[in-house]
Amino acid sequence: MSRNLDVGMAQMGPTARHATRGEVVKRMMELLHEAAERKVELLVYPELALTTFFPRWHIEDEEEMLSFFEEEMPSEATQPLFDEAARLGIGFCLGYAEVLTDDEGVTHRYNTQILVERDGSQVARFRKIHIPGHADNQEWRPFQHLERYYFESGPGGFGVWRAFGGIVGMAICNDRRWSETYRVMGLQGAELILIGYNTPYFYAADPQQNALQNFHNHVVMQAGAYQNGCWVVGVAKAGTEEGVENIAQSVIVAPSGQIVCQTITDGDELAVARIDLDFCRFYKENVFNFDLYRVPEHYRIISETRGAILPPEPE
Amino acid sequence: MSRNLDVGMAQMGPTARHATRGEVVKRMMELLHEAAERKVELLVYPELALTTFFPRWHIEDEEEMLSFFEEEMPSEATQPLFDEAARLGIGFCLGYAEVLTDDEGVTHRYNTQILVERDGSQVARFRKIHIPGHADNQEWRPFQHLERYYFESGPGGFGVWRAFGGIVGMAICNDRRWSETYRVMGLQGAELILIGYNTPYFYAADPQQNALQNFHNHVVMQAGAYQNGCWVVGVAKAGTEEGVENIAQSVIVAPSGQIVCQTITDGDELAVARIDLDFCRFYKENVFNFDLYRVPEHYRIISETRGAILPPEPE
Repeated sequence: MSRNLDVGMAQMGPTARHATRGEVVKRMMELLHEAAERKVELLVYPELALTTFFPRWHIEDEEEMLSFFEEEMPSEATQPLFDEAARLGIGFCLGYAEVLTDDEGVTHRYNTQILVERDGSQVARFRKIHIPGHADNQEWRPFQHLERYYFESGPGGFGVWRAFGGIVGMAICNDRRWSETYRVMGLQGAELILIGYNTPYFYAADPQQNALQNFHNHVVMQAGAYQNGCWVVGVAKAGTEEGVENIAQSVIVAPSGQIVCQTITDGDELAVARIDLDFCRFYKENVFNFDLYRVPEHYRIISETRGAILPPEPE
Repeated sequence: MSRNLDVGMAQMGPTARHATRGEVVKRMMELLHEAAERKVELLVYPELALTTFFPRWHIEDEEEMLSFFEEEMPSEATQPLFDEAARLGIGFCLGYAEVLTDDEGVTHRYNTQILVERDGSQVARFRKIHIPGHADNQEWRPFQHLERYYFESGPGGFGVWRAFGGIVGMAICNDRRWSETYRVMGLQGAELILIGYNTPYFYAADPQQNALQNFHNHVVMQAGAYQNGCWVVGVAKAGTEEGVENIAQSVIVAPSGQIVCQTITDGDELAVARIDLDFCRFYKENVFNFDLYRVPEHYRIISETRGAILPPEPE
């Protein structure tokens, strides 16, 4: 029994602040064509794949800010990518900054990923839940991490969708550090979780963590895959972008927690693995048989509490 | 700023089926005395430290079954260990099989860990929540894993206690594989989680996992420590016990997820590390600032659901 899927990681190197969408899409098309040669069925691009990681700057001018966002997807610039992927029969997942106006005329900005099937049909949009960094300009930092200035947390939570012959979920960057991310999707039967990320090497809040960035990147995805019996694909925007060094090491992690595929450069790079979605059952039906072994009555604090509640101080 | 604590792992090698409590306590006393020489303040013994791992047999005779359980703790056989530890000023954590009769005359059997302070005062008892294995004798297995025949799930959930200058929690063996274990304690401010385990190398339900046993052992504790900004101490009953090989590699994991101390044999072995409980704050106050970054409204399924709920099948 096997449900094989050929998955490609379309890791991307740095994108300059003033790069045009056309320039970026051209690189994405090159990765797409290499993926076609290698018979990839699902190609995963990183978070905010279409632009530089602009949350490193505090941009007050609205027009300039919105120049990094997409009002529609596909947009004029990305339509050729959507068309070519459909022509080649390759599905894909793509991260971008999304701006939309709701029915009540309120504008929302999200850090979004779209999932597109091999026939070009749009499966789902996921909006990042765990927004890291800060909302105020902090001049002591060598560069900003202003995701909480630019993005709202996605209102839709973590969903899964039947696609690519299995059950697929999505998460974005910082979402991957939170065990709840994987569990909420695992409890919906996720067999494959697609994650794009931009992760600077330098962590201003505690630079002693710098050298551990990639270890942390991997350990959370490995534990998340193992503990939920699912495949996890994590794809970086990597390399030194506008003076800021980002980690690379994009990986495909098996339900065993093992890394089965990893990029080796910090630039545009395709890495491919054949994954068997049926392999999930060895974990979902045994050591992580949720229905048999979970004890949700003792988990209530997880959904009822936000911050930690410490035991009382001794008198 | 630092709150240093010298922690010892009292890994234990195999214990025969017919070993007496006296023989086992003698080995535990030797580890205790070595710990005293090395100025250990908190010594962690494994799960079911006082006996062999008896759930590998289906024992129907009640008297024989109960011979592996303790009706009181300290018991007559363990009193000398409690006394000597208090005399030496060493606190400890010790796993054992507990039988008790409640106020309504109902008998309960738990897989229990007791935490004792340096002055000999009993801090807490924790009863294992996630009971692995099976409840029925399965003769196709080369050996049984009958924890669900011998033990109820602990009714008390995962607590934490102010002890050893910090906030301490406990878990037992299979509890460590579940992300909820760490998060429920992390949400109560846990700075140090003490875990004993007995983990056979051979996993009958899916033997392709055998070679990954120790990788899995470590990755779950490393992710749990990192994602909750706490220290995790995992101590094995190791070696080949009554013909069954058990994994060893007891570890102390820092809030960074790094293994800072590891045993190197599969027998009785003391390994010691100085841990700084204040190191937790680098993680609890930054990348895992729960109050700032968690989004519990999207975590409800974790406590409301036991087994997975799959999306509807396509028509």
